Amino acid sequence: MNIVCDLFPNLTQLDLTGPFEVFHRIPGARVHLAARTPEPVRAEGGLTILPTIAFADAPQADILCVPGGWGVNEAMLDDELLAFVRRPATWVTSVCTGALVLGAAGLLDGYGAATHWAAMEYLSLFGARATERRVVVDRNRITGGGVTAGIDIALRIVREIYGGTLADEISLAIEYGPANDEVRERVLERLGPITKKRLGAVALAAQKLRA
Amino acid sequence: MNIVCDLFPNLTQLDLTGPFEVFHRIPGARVHLAARTPEPVRAEGGLTILPTIAFADAPQADILCVPGGWGVNEAMLDDELLAFVRRPATWVTSVCTGALVLGAAGLLDGYGAATHWAAMEYLSLFGARATERRVVVDRNRITGGGVTAGIDIALRIVREIYGGTLADEISLAIEYGPANDEVRERVLERLGPITKKRLGAVALAAQKLRA
Repeated sequence: MNIVCDLFPNLTQLDLTGPFEVFHRIPGARVHLAARTPEPVRAEGGLTILPTIAFADAPQADILCVPGGWGVNEAMLDDELLAFVRRPATWVTSVCTGALVLGAAGLLDGYGAATHWAAMEYLSLFGARATERRVVVDRNRITGGGVTAGIDIALRIVREIYGGTLADEISLAIEYGPANDEVRERVLERLGPITKKRLGAVALAAQKLRA
Repeated sequence: MNIVCDLFPNLTQLDLTGPFEVFHRIPGARVHLAARTPEPVRAEGGLTILPTIAFADAPQADILCVPGGWGVNEAMLDDELLAFVRRPATWVTSVCTGALVLGAAGLLDGYGAATHWAAMEYLSLFGARATERRVVVDRNRITGGGVTAGIDIALRIVREIYGGTLADEISLAIEYGPANDEVRERVLERLGPITKKRLGAVALAAQKLRA
């Protein structure tokens, strides 16, 4: 399972890092952060992320995920980025104003879609049907609302592909959903060996503190 | 206002990037990502972030924020990191198992605190009173639950220092809170000049798509 997110300057980092936190917890998934060059990419506010792969070397995406941000203004007019986004993918998804990039690539024409609430009016210019929901699934396009909605979008993708069990487990692991006892037991069981290691470290740190 | 977050290998990146998305939206705030060296820091799952400052050069923190993650096992025993965390700060905060680092630094002795649900039992080893809440404020310590709770923690910090108006505006901007019409108007007004620029870019991209 290859999950490919694209990086561009002045993206809203949480549009990317929210879904990333969900995606990398999918067993067997590999999350690629693709950019034109290997140079670090500076997001809004100055958080700087290293790409893991160049556009040219990225594998075919099972899931493509496009974040938003003020940098979308340039991204929508960037032919190289648009060509990358147009490459065949099983699921084509976006967070926040990443939907405008999908729109500019011609990928939302005739689709229901969502974006950040302050950008909803722009979707129709790309032939998309603006839909005021946190996550919108229309055939293989999954788009959603602003910034933190990326977490919901990613969990919905997991639910669509892997079912509710894994989605609930990841949700609980990142404390995004209500703690259901049954899910809690399953997650604890899986965490078993590493929590034992953690207890050892905590005991040592506590001992050191008291020394 | 200097907000200082610390980076260490194998942190849970969303523990850091969630609060970052809130903090950098505080007018006049500067968010520093401090690490021992300027080398990129690899979080769980392989997302790699560049520090903005070395421990030695970091300014005094108005807000110190410590993320969690499996790397906490090493961080709890890292004297240099613990010394950095112990430097005087107006607010001392943590996300997820970052509370264990505060605990190991001796900063939670006698305090009510929260952490990831699967790590709650460890807090007492550092003299903290484990408190099953998403955000716990005890004097100048603000700690909270796992991963996504970092967004709530950061919004609570904004609320404590700047009041509800700014917290509501940031919350709406990142679509984390219910859309209140009054807040929506204020945010839209502030966005005015940049949304006009966005409309220009969208129109151009749509024109290009149709050409």
